Amino acid sequence: MRIALLGGTGEIGEALAVRWAHHTDHEILVGSRDPANARDAVDRYEATLDAADTTGTIKGFANEMATDRADIIVLAVPAYHLADTIDAVADRLADDAIVVTPAVGMKRDEAGFHYNPPPAGSVTALAADAVPEGTTLVGAFHNLAAGRLADLDASFEWDTLVFGNDSSAKAQISRLAEAIDGVRAVDVGGLENAAEVEALTPLLINVAQENEGMHQLGVRLN
Amino acid sequence: MRIALLGGTGEIGEALAVRWAHHTDHEILVGSRDPANARDAVDRYEATLDAADTTGTIKGFANEMATDRADIIVLAVPAYHLADTIDAVADRLADDAIVVTPAVGMKRDEAGFHYNPPPAGSVTALAADAVPEGTTLVGAFHNLAAGRLADLDASFEWDTLVFGNDSSAKAQISRLAEAIDGVRAVDVGGLENAAEVEALTPLLINVAQENEGMHQLGVRLN
Repeated sequence: MRIALLGGTGEIGEALAVRWAHHTDHEILVGSRDPANARDAVDRYEATLDAADTTGTIKGFANEMATDRADIIVLAVPAYHLADTIDAVADRLADDAIVVTPAVGMKRDEAGFHYNPPPAGSVTALAADAVPEGTTLVGAFHNLAAGRLADLDASFEWDTLVFGNDSSAKAQISRLAEAIDGVRAVDVGGLENAAEVEALTPLLINVAQENEGMHQLGVRLN
Repeated sequence: MRIALLGGTGEIGEALAVRWAHHTDHEILVGSRDPANARDAVDRYEATLDAADTTGTIKGFANEMATDRADIIVLAVPAYHLADTIDAVADRLADDAIVVTPAVGMKRDEAGFHYNPPPAGSVTALAADAVPEGTTLVGAFHNLAAGRLADLDASFEWDTLVFGNDSSAKAQISRLAEAIDGVRAVDVGGLENAAEVEALTPLLINVAQENEGMHQLGVRLN
């Protein structure tokens, strides 16, 4: 299977790229607006894999080219680039492709970080409005601490909350999540349930800011 | 110390009453609008303690009388009764009393449960507007599954997220939380960080609805 990580040069893109390269046989396509940046990132990711004595298949492309080739497209971009990124690749999406959004909208004030959904109600709803009609959209990977996930020596027991209106796509993304050692996928229903998942990320950041030794946190429901 | 649970005949009131009676030496004052209901609830809670071969000090009162006597007042009422309940007891609050809100505002639609904050921005902000000036307010106990917490044979590893603008009050409520075996208190900063904590409760309910065997969940940040 081929997985495109659009904006794959960012923190969560890097984390998912090296983890999937390490734990799966899938071909990872790192996308960026500038393909040279994508190729530079791939060099770094390959060095990470090499240092951990593991290998994988990662290639760098422009976002459009990565989308062209992919079965699964992860929108690993900031929330404010989500609609633009989708617009740029919309005509490259295969009919049976699955688009995944891990994006979260936050604002910061003196007290801490806060969930800041767009007028559509959630970042996911914004993505749902932006993708071509009939596109299968799944939400996942919002609440994973990218730095710790990218460290192949790190261990954790985390849940990723997966939502979407297509059960089979949701199951496929859940399997991909659980291919990463220490990650459990938990179904939270349809796309309408996105906001509460997205809102969990600023909470984790606030906890990290308020408590020494509680950094790079994830969540386990039990 | 004396702890009043206003609306202490409800699910989270029952859970905190039997747990604190069991794990601490504090005097638990169960409050209700109707003191006869409070006394009936206390009879049930004492039977629960008895069945678990433990004891504690629990008494039933009208909310006003419970507040009169209390060092800590927990607003264990539904969000839509929060302002009314505060109004009813406001002139009974001791100057150094700590008021605790565990209340969450939710709405339900076909997809699931959703966070439904009042215009003030969070249920906590609504409580902050309703308490007399100078009252110390702390948020805690939002995301604990009441049924499992009330079962003295149940075990769990849960976090309760504690926030407020008075560090010493926050520390006192955190100690009270951690008096319950299996509960860890985690500081999330000031009252302005309430909404993300309150929003976690509908997420836990959605997970319970979507997944067999995942009921009465709490959360552990790790």
